[in-house]
Amino acid sequence: MADVDYCVVGAGFAGLTAALRLKQAGRSVALLEARDRVGGRTFTVTRDDGSWIDRGGAWVGPGQDRIHALMDEFGVPEYKQNHDGDAMMIVDGKKHRYGGTIPWSMSPWAVTNLGVGLTVLEEMCKAVPRESPWEAKKADEWDRISLAEWIEKNSLSKQAREMLDMALAGTYTSAASETSLLWMLTQMGSGGGPGFVIGGKGGAQDARPVGGMGAIYRPMAAELVDALHLSQPVQQISQDADGVTVSAADVTVRARRVIVAIPLAIATSIVYEPALPVDRAFLHQRMPSGAVIKVSVIYDEPFWRADGFSGQSSSPNSPATLTIDACTDTADPGIMCIITEGPAARRLTKLDEAERKAVFIGELVDRFGSKAKTPLELHEQNWTVERYSGGGMIGHAPTGVLTQFGYTLRPPCGRVHWAGTESSAVMCGWIDGAVRSGERAASEVMAAETAAVS
Amino acid sequence: MADVDYCVVGAGFAGLTAALRLKQAGRSVALLEARDRVGGRTFTVTRDDGSWIDRGGAWVGPGQDRIHALMDEFGVPEYKQNHDGDAMMIVDGKKHRYGGTIPWSMSPWAVTNLGVGLTVLEEMCKAVPRESPWEAKKADEWDRISLAEWIEKNSLSKQAREMLDMALAGTYTSAASETSLLWMLTQMGSGGGPGFVIGGKGGAQDARPVGGMGAIYRPMAAELVDALHLSQPVQQISQDADGVTVSAADVTVRARRVIVAIPLAIATSIVYEPALPVDRAFLHQRMPSGAVIKVSVIYDEPFWRADGFSGQSSSPNSPATLTIDACTDTADPGIMCIITEGPAARRLTKLDEAERKAVFIGELVDRFGSKAKTPLELHEQNWTVERYSGGGMIGHAPTGVLTQFGYTLRPPCGRVHWAGTESSAVMCGWIDGAVRSGERAASEVMAAETAAVS
Repeated sequence: MADVDYCVVGAGFAGLTAALRLKQAGRSVALLEARDRVGGRTFTVTRDDGSWIDRGGAWVGPGQDRIHALMDEFGVPEYKQNHDGDAMMIVDGKKHRYGGTIPWSMSPWAVTNLGVGLTVLEEMCKAVPRESPWEAKKADEWDRISLAEWIEKNSLSKQAREMLDMALAGTYTSAASETSLLWMLTQMGSGGGPGFVIGGKGGAQDARPVGGMGAIYRPMAAELVDALHLSQPVQQISQDADGVTVSAADVTVRARRVIVAIPLAIATSIVYEPALPVDRAFLHQRMPSGAVIKVSVIYDEPFWRADGFSGQSSSPNSPATLTIDACTDTADPGIMCIITEGPAARRLTKLDEAERKAVFIGELVDRFGSKAKTPLELHEQNWTVERYSGGGMIGHAPTGVLTQFGYTLRPPCGRVHWAGTESSAVMCGWIDGAVRSGERAASEVMAAETAAVS
Repeated sequence: MADVDYCVVGAGFAGLTAALRLKQAGRSVALLEARDRVGGRTFTVTRDDGSWIDRGGAWVGPGQDRIHALMDEFGVPEYKQNHDGDAMMIVDGKKHRYGGTIPWSMSPWAVTNLGVGLTVLEEMCKAVPRESPWEAKKADEWDRISLAEWIEKNSLSKQAREMLDMALAGTYTSAASETSLLWMLTQMGSGGGPGFVIGGKGGAQDARPVGGMGAIYRPMAAELVDALHLSQPVQQISQDADGVTVSAADVTVRARRVIVAIPLAIATSIVYEPALPVDRAFLHQRMPSGAVIKVSVIYDEPFWRADGFSGQSSSPNSPATLTIDACTDTADPGIMCIITEGPAARRLTKLDEAERKAVFIGELVDRFGSKAKTPLELHEQNWTVERYSGGGMIGHAPTGVLTQFGYTLRPPCGRVHWAGTESSAVMCGWIDGAVRSGERAASEVMAAETAAVS
């Protein structure tokens, strides 16, 4: 039985940050993690040659001040994502090669429509209050329909529809029919709108930490080495008048308060005593995770760059929904990343590993030529089947959930506090949002302490 | 370690039926139930005077052949639900007293619109294939929007909208914005359409078993007494080439196959080894339960009958969404039942028991006069907070779920078979559907056995 000031459940960026801030404030902490590693939905593997692969969350962008603050704290510089060269979009088997964000070689009809769609969405995002999207003037209207319905009613061409579907629903790694329009506006709005999400340069894929995300989470974990318990899935959280008892496989923690920093989709796996207030318990049943496979393919060199490609390509509904250059700052070796999302990722999960590998390489050869045929290595991370993520990349709210249950995302339930990127009103769904949520939760428990004393 | 032919998880009507049919076919069975009682989402309490209260599911209706077969098997007669007298609908504080299904004292505009809405829905239900709703011609279109969106776009008056909302969304004990239109059509269609659901006489509230549901499930449990293990929440199901190992709190069962007959919303609480196929695992994250409180108020006599009331009343969004006469076949004592659903039930859950009691009695006095003021007893069953139901009455599919994941509702995952009313293509959501699902699953495991032998 460990007896500490505070317990933190989950050692992804949200939990690591919460525990770190508490320790830095002089509090004793126990940090329980179900996996045998820290990092949560980020996971950096370092190769023998010093290059690294981010098998999960990887990018940072402007406005993500809190992850940048952590990078400064631990002396981790960033480097710019490669955006030089042409991108590619494949629709109905036809390749459109283009510079910039929008594939201008598509039909003018499609491009115009796409541009109009994004402009309208930017304005809608601005109409959603960050802290309380359920109070938007049109909250009910926007939470009654799925993103798919909005796209259907606002796309005048099949091409524009497919691209909007991929660019928007892709973020939730689910079918567009599964996601509430209001959720999409809330999540994208929390990062500044669809321009930030879709834009690479100056957007959500602007830069990466040198050394990968592990260069940040490893020193955080090192500072928390005495607090950290790995391979300890939490089974029960009991609260009473004086504190909480958190029971994991081999360790029990007694603390004044607990911060739960795990994905909503797996928050149901913990038994809460007494039961959580019903609206919060129901939220746990109602924010599922999506499906995503991230594949890193290692080559001698980034040959696509020499051929004038940025490495970025998109092909809606294909087994390689997106590709993106994932080289380190030295561009040696060449690392090409495939991100397959939603229904396509679920279909691929039914194949065996060798079949998937053949499919992935086939897609790369089709897009970037025969040099893609002979990689040195292929690293596949299927977040879809990760028990302790419940899927990937992030949770989403189906229709009706934000307006009915959204208000429970942040407020504590007695001595149980909540963190995790989905609970962040700013940069919700990004690593920066996770960091913000951890800092908020750490402040909350300490504020409660002050309130109790005064 | 119990070693049996088959293990069944969950002793509601689905699990009880599966276990019973297997035993009757000469197979050995272990039946594991998390609660300290059988019945699942039905729960009959017998009073000292021999009268009974159905604290959960209570009614049977025409077309529900399989629950009727069980009643015949155990010699349980039925009696008709009282529909004599006027019903009442309260909209904006105004009481509309009426005979029949539709409150004709409402504005002709509202009534016409309501009637048209129901007629349209009847036709739409017919266009949904029972076994494969995701193959309906308009499946994508209907699964992209919530029931709330359909009501909004198809109601020409506020009164009609409120009544449609209550009558339709009420079935799912959730906000109409949470439920997919396709799910609603599928579920209602499985019972014959909205006429069956809304209609009392000749519909889903046509009759009740004498003695309540317990008169059926108790003799079923008695036949299974050697197989039944109460208070055994299942923690893990492991399958291998030869069979399954089912681990509960104090008992481990080894069997050839297992039938899981628990609500989808709590199916995530079991660890499956190896992990379930991703689409089925994701289904478990995506079919939440709703909120419902059922209150039985006991009076000396059914005084409302003498006053010309049937006992049936409805008041959208009020703390007593519905009331209905719940007397036994002798009509002695008087039993009035309040069913509060969805957001209203969740709001009530935040009050304490005494506050809720005052609210309930206040509603009855308002509708049925001062005689309602002095009940003999009040029995409250809040399914919303039942850990081993995950809520009530049934699970629902949000938008996008049936078209993406619906196909996983019935097929087994290796040696793990699925039962539960939500998996029934006929009478989905009713007790009859649970019985059908149990019989289907029992047939499945025995058919697999034959296939293995031949």
